[in-house]
Amino acid sequence: MRQSLFFSKTRREAPRDEVAKNAQLLIRAGYVHKEMAGVYDFLPLGLRTLKKIENIIREEMNAIGGQEVLLSSLQDPAPWQASGRWDDTVMDVWFKTRLHHGEAFHQGSELGLANTHEEPMVRMMKHHIASHKDLPQYVYQFQTKFRNEVRAKSGVMRTREFVMKDLYSFSRDEREFRAFYEQVAAAYLKVFARCGLGAWTFRTFASGGSFSKFSDEFQTVCEAGEDVIYVDEEKRIAVNEEVYRDEILREIGLEKARLQKKKAVEVGNIFPLGTKYSTALGLTYKNEEGENVPVYMGSYGIGPARVMGTIAERYADEKGLVWPLSVAPFALHLVRLGEEEGVRECADALYTRLQKGGMEVLYDDRPHLHAGEKLSDSDLLGIPCRLVVGNRGIADGVVEWVERQTGSVRQLPIEEAASLLLDPDAGVMPKI
Amino acid sequence: MRQSLFFSKTRREAPRDEVAKNAQLLIRAGYVHKEMAGVYDFLPLGLRTLKKIENIIREEMNAIGGQEVLLSSLQDPAPWQASGRWDDTVMDVWFKTRLHHGEAFHQGSELGLANTHEEPMVRMMKHHIASHKDLPQYVYQFQTKFRNEVRAKSGVMRTREFVMKDLYSFSRDEREFRAFYEQVAAAYLKVFARCGLGAWTFRTFASGGSFSKFSDEFQTVCEAGEDVIYVDEEKRIAVNEEVYRDEILREIGLEKARLQKKKAVEVGNIFPLGTKYSTALGLTYKNEEGENVPVYMGSYGIGPARVMGTIAERYADEKGLVWPLSVAPFALHLVRLGEEEGVRECADALYTRLQKGGMEVLYDDRPHLHAGEKLSDSDLLGIPCRLVVGNRGIADGVVEWVERQTGSVRQLPIEEAASLLLDPDAGVMPKI
Repeated sequence: MRQSLFFSKTRREAPRDEVAKNAQLLIRAGYVHKEMAGVYDFLPLGLRTLKKIENIIREEMNAIGGQEVLLSSLQDPAPWQASGRWDDTVMDVWFKTRLHHGEAFHQGSELGLANTHEEPMVRMMKHHIASHKDLPQYVYQFQTKFRNEVRAKSGVMRTREFVMKDLYSFSRDEREFRAFYEQVAAAYLKVFARCGLGAWTFRTFASGGSFSKFSDEFQTVCEAGEDVIYVDEEKRIAVNEEVYRDEILREIGLEKARLQKKKAVEVGNIFPLGTKYSTALGLTYKNEEGENVPVYMGSYGIGPARVMGTIAERYADEKGLVWPLSVAPFALHLVRLGEEEGVRECADALYTRLQKGGMEVLYDDRPHLHAGEKLSDSDLLGIPCRLVVGNRGIADGVVEWVERQTGSVRQLPIEEAASLLLDPDAGVMPKI
Repeated sequence: MRQSLFFSKTRREAPRDEVAKNAQLLIRAGYVHKEMAGVYDFLPLGLRTLKKIENIIREEMNAIGGQEVLLSSLQDPAPWQASGRWDDTVMDVWFKTRLHHGEAFHQGSELGLANTHEEPMVRMMKHHIASHKDLPQYVYQFQTKFRNEVRAKSGVMRTREFVMKDLYSFSRDEREFRAFYEQVAAAYLKVFARCGLGAWTFRTFASGGSFSKFSDEFQTVCEAGEDVIYVDEEKRIAVNEEVYRDEILREIGLEKARLQKKKAVEVGNIFPLGTKYSTALGLTYKNEEGENVPVYMGSYGIGPARVMGTIAERYADEKGLVWPLSVAPFALHLVRLGEEEGVRECADALYTRLQKGGMEVLYDDRPHLHAGEKLSDSDLLGIPCRLVVGNRGIADGVVEWVERQTGSVRQLPIEEAASLLLDPDAGVMPKI
C-alpha cells in the first residue's frame, strides 16, 4: 500500500480528554478515532490489526470445533425476562431502545442492545437441540456488545461498544462440558501466545457463579490493568484478588509466599454456566433413557480490541507503538528518503517485488517530507520491520533494514534485499 | 465440513409469521434464524454466504481505491444536530438510547444508533482533510445499520438491523467527484454480476437530493421487490417510477414505448451529496489558491443481506434454494447414501481428497437417515453441485454428479472423480 494514497495520518497530540496510553498512541498513530468517551472508530491501520487478532481467535476456535454464527444486536426482552436479567438493577449495563409505534416515535415495545448473548443464543438453540444426538454444540460469533459503562477511561480496553468473540458450549453433562472447557482454556493460551502476550498472560482463578465455585480469567500482567492478581510465575497460574483468601489458596494448592501482586488486564474469560440458562429458558434434550434433561452450558469471551489495547500498552516505547508481526497491520515499512530519481526507482522496484512476493508492505512514498518526519512517523506506527531507501545507502549499494522493537540495524545489498526479505529462512524477517 | 458435526438443521416449516419467500427458505434450510420481526441471526451456512458476498464487494471497493474503516454504531447527537437530521420527524427511522447518569438508568444524554454514517464520517474526516493534497479520499465500511421500520415484511431484504457496505467519497470538486461516481457505478455492476444478478440488474434513474436532480439506484428485477421500475432492456437502463414522467424520459433519452414495467429490489444506490454535509459540518480544504472551500461528497451503499435475499428469491425453485457458485456456502455437497463399509470408505476417501485439493465440501455423513431425506435436504440447501456416493453406483464403479440448478446428471468413474472435480478445465465444476 502506497502511503501517499493510504487513509492514515499521524497527529502530534491525542485529544485532551484521552487519559489511556493505548488510546493516546493509537489515536496519534492514526489507528483509531475517538467518537466520544468509550466509543472508538477503527481506521485502516487499526482495522487491519483488529482483523488479524480476530483471525487468530477464529482459527483457534475453529480448531476445537467452534461453529461461527452472527446473532443480532437488537434483542427481544422475552428471553431476558425469563432468565431474570432484563431488569436494570440486575444487569446495570443495558442500553435499551424502543420500536416505533406507527407515527409515535419510540413509543412501541422496548428492545435491548446486546450486552451479551446467552439468552437469545439459548432460545435459538431450542430449534437445534432436541436429542442427545444433537449434542455437543459449540457456537461462537464476533459480534458487537453495547455496555452502558458509567466510566470508560481505559481507552480501547473498556468501551461502551466493542466486538466480542463469544462462544457458547452446549453439552450433555458436566463431564462432557469440563473436557471442552479445558480445550478452550488451552486454545485461549494459544491465542494470547500468538498475539505476543504469552509470557505475561496467566490463567487466573476468579469467582464463579451459581454453578461453579470458580471461573477462569486470562489476565495479562500490565500496569494499565484494572484488575489485581497474585501470580505464581513458576506454576504459571494466578488468583484474582476477589478470591485471594487463605482457605482458597489452600484449596487450589498455591503458596502465599510465592505469589506476586500485579496489576493485570482481563483479556479473556471462560465461565461454567451449568444449567442456569437452559433451565430458565427450557433448553432440554432427550437423553438415552428418554428423559428430558437440561443442557449443560459454558460461555467463553475474548474482546479483540482489548487484546489490541493490551498489546499496545505492553509493547509501546517512548517512540510509539510496537507490534508483534502476527498482529501488525503491515509486516514491513518501506521508507523512501528523498525525491531523487535513483532513490525513487530503487524504492519503487523494491515495493513492486516485495508486493509480488506476497509481503504486506506499507510504502512511504510521500513526497516533500523531511527524513526526520518520515522516520518518527514510522517509529510511531510501529510496523515490525523498516527498510530505508536513501541517497547515501544507494551510493554504497545498500538499503537499511531496522527492527522496530530492538532497533537492530542491518545493511542489505540492494540487489539481494528483496530475496532476503522474502525468504523466511534467510534470517532477516522475524517469523510469526 | 462433516455435516454430522456441522451446526445446521433443516426445518419442515418456516415460522408462521414469516411471509417472505426468501426468509421462509433461508429459515427452513438453516441459513438464518428469525429473532423477531425484521431481525435475523445468521447461522453457519448463512454467514458463509453473507461473507462471500461481502468479500466480492470488498474486492471491488478496494480495486477502485476504497479504504476500509469501521465507525461506531453508537452516535453522538452533535453532528446530526448540526446537519438537521437528529429530529425524528426529519429522519423517521432512528433508534435512540440513553447513557446512564450515575445510578440513574437511562437518564443521561441521548445517543443514536447508526442508521447511516454521513455525519460522524464527515466529522471524523475533519481530522484527515485540511489541504487539496489530502484529497480525494474514498472510505468505506461494513457496519451495522439500525432502522426503526414500522413494517418489515420482506424477509432479509428489509430489516431493522443489517450490515451495510457504505462508502463515502471526498473530492475537490464536482468533476473529480463525477469521475469517481462513474467508477463506483461500474464497480457495482461488477459486484452484482459476480453475485449472479447481472442479467436482471439495471442502473436506474431515481430522484436526487438538493445537489443533484438524480441519484442512481441499482435495481434487480424480481417479483418480491418493493419498487417499480421501467426497464429499457436493450440500453440496460431503467427509471424508477418516482421519476417516471414524460419530461424526464425525454431528458434522459428513453422512449416510453420501449420501457417495460417491472417489480424490482434496490440492491444498491449511489448518491451525489454535493457539499450539503461538508458545509453543515465545516469540512473544508485549502485549495491551490489558498481559499477554504467545502469538500464535494458522494455516498454509495450496498446491503449484503439484501443481495443474499434477492439471490435466494431469483434462483430458488420448488425444491429449495439454488446458489451461484460465487456466493454458495460450499461448492460441493458430497452426499453418502448408506452405511455399508464400502460406501463409507469411498465417500470418506473422496471427502479427504477434495478437501486437500482446496474444494469447499459439505459432506453429508449423517448416519441413519433415509436417502430421500438426504436428497431433499440437499435440494433445499442449494449447494451448486452434488456428488452422490451410494451402493448401486459403487457396484458400477461410479459416483453421481448432479448440478443443482439444471438438474443435469453425470456418472463419474470413482477413480477419476476427485481429479475431474478439482481440475477447473475438466468441464465438470462450473467456473466462478
